[in-house]
Amino acid sequence: MKAILIIADGLGGRPTDYNGKTCLESANTPNLDKLSDIGINGLLDPIRPGVRPGSDTAHLSIFGYDPEKVYTGRGVFEALGIGMEVKDGDICFRANLATVDDDFRVIDRRAGRINEGLKEIEKAINGIEMEDVEIIYKSSVEHRGALIIRGENLSHNITDADPHKVGVKVTKVKALSREKSARRTAEIVNKFIQKSYQVLKDLPINRKREREGKLPANIVLLRGASIKPEIEPFHELYGIEGSAIAGGALYLGIAKAIGLKAIKPEGATGRKDSDLISKVKAALEELDEGKDFVFIHFKGADSCAHDHDAKSKIEFIERIDQAVGYLLENVDLDDAHIAFTGDHSTPIEFGDHSADPVPIVIAGKNVMPDDVKRFSERAAMKGGLGRISGRVIPILFGYCDWLEKFGA
Amino acid sequence: MKAILIIADGLGGRPTDYNGKTCLESANTPNLDKLSDIGINGLLDPIRPGVRPGSDTAHLSIFGYDPEKVYTGRGVFEALGIGMEVKDGDICFRANLATVDDDFRVIDRRAGRINEGLKEIEKAINGIEMEDVEIIYKSSVEHRGALIIRGENLSHNITDADPHKVGVKVTKVKALSREKSARRTAEIVNKFIQKSYQVLKDLPINRKREREGKLPANIVLLRGASIKPEIEPFHELYGIEGSAIAGGALYLGIAKAIGLKAIKPEGATGRKDSDLISKVKAALEELDEGKDFVFIHFKGADSCAHDHDAKSKIEFIERIDQAVGYLLENVDLDDAHIAFTGDHSTPIEFGDHSADPVPIVIAGKNVMPDDVKRFSERAAMKGGLGRISGRVIPILFGYCDWLEKFGA
Repeated sequence: MKAILIIADGLGGRPTDYNGKTCLESANTPNLDKLSDIGINGLLDPIRPGVRPGSDTAHLSIFGYDPEKVYTGRGVFEALGIGMEVKDGDICFRANLATVDDDFRVIDRRAGRINEGLKEIEKAINGIEMEDVEIIYKSSVEHRGALIIRGENLSHNITDADPHKVGVKVTKVKALSREKSARRTAEIVNKFIQKSYQVLKDLPINRKREREGKLPANIVLLRGASIKPEIEPFHELYGIEGSAIAGGALYLGIAKAIGLKAIKPEGATGRKDSDLISKVKAALEELDEGKDFVFIHFKGADSCAHDHDAKSKIEFIERIDQAVGYLLENVDLDDAHIAFTGDHSTPIEFGDHSADPVPIVIAGKNVMPDDVKRFSERAAMKGGLGRISGRVIPILFGYCDWLEKFGA
Repeated sequence: MKAILIIADGLGGRPTDYNGKTCLESANTPNLDKLSDIGINGLLDPIRPGVRPGSDTAHLSIFGYDPEKVYTGRGVFEALGIGMEVKDGDICFRANLATVDDDFRVIDRRAGRINEGLKEIEKAINGIEMEDVEIIYKSSVEHRGALIIRGENLSHNITDADPHKVGVKVTKVKALSREKSARRTAEIVNKFIQKSYQVLKDLPINRKREREGKLPANIVLLRGASIKPEIEPFHELYGIEGSAIAGGALYLGIAKAIGLKAIKPEGATGRKDSDLISKVKAALEELDEGKDFVFIHFKGADSCAHDHDAKSKIEFIERIDQAVGYLLENVDLDDAHIAFTGDHSTPIEFGDHSADPVPIVIAGKNVMPDDVKRFSERAAMKGGLGRISGRVIPILFGYCDWLEKFGA
C-alpha cells in the first residue's frame, strides 16, 4: 500500500472569482473529477472553521500536528528549506533584500527582484559583526533568503521589521513578551538592519545597478522570527517513511522540520512556470524506491490569486489536473490511496489567504465512495467526508491501515 | 421519557467486504431501515476522524468521556467485568492462559481454548508468592481471565508480555516511563510470568491434557496494564441512572467503571452465538423497573469480522436487526429515544478495527427526521446528523431534554 497527498496551494476560491464561479469551478478538470467520482469528498478547514490559515500552519495541521502547539514562526522553515543548518536556540528569519531611501523609507520590498550579485551581497551580510551574536545569511532565489541570529539568551518573541508595504519606514522591531531576551533580540535585530544598510548601500553591485537605473538591494528586511520547533518526527508519529516534492523553500523546510525527505526536482520552481509533471515523476520514483508515502506540493494557483489573476489561476489548476492525470495513469488505486486538497483558499478579489474551506477528495480501494462527481467547492458540500478540520494525513493513513490502535 | 443506546461492536465496513458492498449494506435489515426512515442519520467517528479506536476507548468516547484524559488501559475493565474488586493503586491486566515450550516460545495464545480445570488453575496462580505484592487472578471463560497485582509503588506504565502472535518468545515487559515504580512493576511482572510457568507446567490438569494430546495451560500472558481510572460517574455527569446489558467482560467492566448497573443476561455470551433477544428483554425489564437509560451491547459482528468472515457478519447483523425489531415492538417511541450505532468499523479484509466512521441513527419523537431511509455507511453520508465525533450519549440525552444548561 502507498499513500499520496497532493496539496494545491491556495486552491479554494469564492463565487466572486470569475463570472459567478470559483476558479476551480471554472477550470476544466477531468482528472480531478474522476477522483471525485471514485472517491469520498468533503470540505476541509485546514486548521478549523473561522481560522485564516498561513501556508505553514495549514500544512502542519494537515500533516496531523497542532499548529497552536508546535508553530513558532515561518523563518525556521525558510532557513531549513534553503539548506541552512538550524541549531537549538537559533533565531531564524525570512529575509528579503529590499530598497530603502536615506530615511529608511521602503521603495521596493523586493529590490527590483534583483537576480545578480547575490553571492557578493551574501558575503557582505555575513561579514556584518555584531556583539555577542553570529549572523548567518543565505540567499535563495532573487531577493529571497533566510537569516539566522545565533547566540545566547535570544528570543523569537519579536515583531517583524518588514512593514509589508512601500512608502513607509522600516518597522522598528519590538519585543512581544516581557522576557529580557526578547527585548535584547529586538535591539539586536534593529541594530543589524541599520548595519545591513551601511554595508550594502555602497556595494559595487548596488552602485552598478543604480548607474543602470535599477533599484539597489540596500537593506535586509526580516520577518517570521522563529526557533526550531519541537515536533515529533513524522516517521515516529506514524511509523511511515515519506518524501516531499516541492519547489518553494517554505514547503521543503516544513518537510525537513518533520523529518520527510525533501526533494526539489529539476524544473520545480515554486512559481507558476513550475514543471508539474516532473514533480509527479519525482514522487513516483520515491514510491518505486521504497517510500510508503509521498507529498506533492503545487504552489502556482496561490501566486496567481495573490496577483488577483483569475485566468492564470484557472490555467494553473488545469495544469495541475493534467499532472494528476499523469499520476493516475501511473498509480494502481488497488494498492494506493490518494488525497487531493488545498492548504487554504485564496480568492481572486481578496488576493490573500481566506478562512473559506477547501474541497478535499480521497480515493483508493478502502474508500467508501459518495455521490459527488465533480471536484469543486460547491460539489464537495454534498460529500461523504463531511466537513473536517485538518488531520488529512491520519485520515489518509487510516484508509491505508497504517494507524496504531488507540485503546484495545 | 426513556433512552436506549445500542452499540453493535465492529459494525462498520468497507466496499471490499462483500461483492462491492459492506456487510451492513449486504444484510437484510428492515428494522434498522425503519429506524433510519423515522430518525436522523449520520456518520460517527467514535473518537475523531483519523483515530483508530479500541473498543474500550470508543465506548468511553461515545458515553461522553474523553478517552485521552480518562483511559488508563484495558485490564481494569476486564477485571471489573468479571466481578473482581479493584482498589486504588491496583495494577490490572487482561490475562490469557497460553501454551509455551520450554524456551518460553508461544505455541498457542489460548492454550487450546482450554475449558476444564479452570478452578484448579486459578488456585495455583493465586498461590504464587511474590515479594511485597499480592497476586489476585480470576478465571472467566475458557482461557480468559484478569489479574491484579496489589502492593505499594506500582505503575501501569509498562508494556505487554503477550507477544500477540505465536512462534515467538514471551515478550519481556519493559517500563514505559522513567519512574522507578514502572521499572519495579516490569520486573515483578516478568518474575510472575516465569513463576506462572513453574507452578502450571506440572499441574495435574495439564499433565492430563498432555496425555490426551491437548495443549497445556502452562503460562499466564498479561496485557493491558491499567489502574482504576478517574471517571466522573455517569449518574453524576448526566443525572441519569442507567443499566448496561452485555455479554463480554470488557463492556460490563466499562459499565461498572462509569457506575452503570452491569447485567449479563442468561444466554448472553459475548460471542456470535449470543442470545440477542434475551438482551433486549433484559433491557426492557430495566426500563420497566425504573431505569431511565439502558445500553445494549452486541459483540458478534466484530468477532466475525476479526475472523474475516463476511457471511457470518452479515448473518449476525440480520440477527441484530431482528432484536431491534423486537425492541421496536415493545417500546413507545413517543416516550423514548433510541440511538443505534457501532463502536468502530471492522472491515472483513483488514480483520481489525479501522478508522472508518460508522453509521448512526437516532429516533424518537423529538428528532427531526431526514431523508435517509436505509441504515448503511453509504446512506448515512446524506443524513441530518452530519459527521459527528463521539459523544452519542449527550446527543441522545439532549433529545430527551435531560441535559443541564451550560450558561444561563
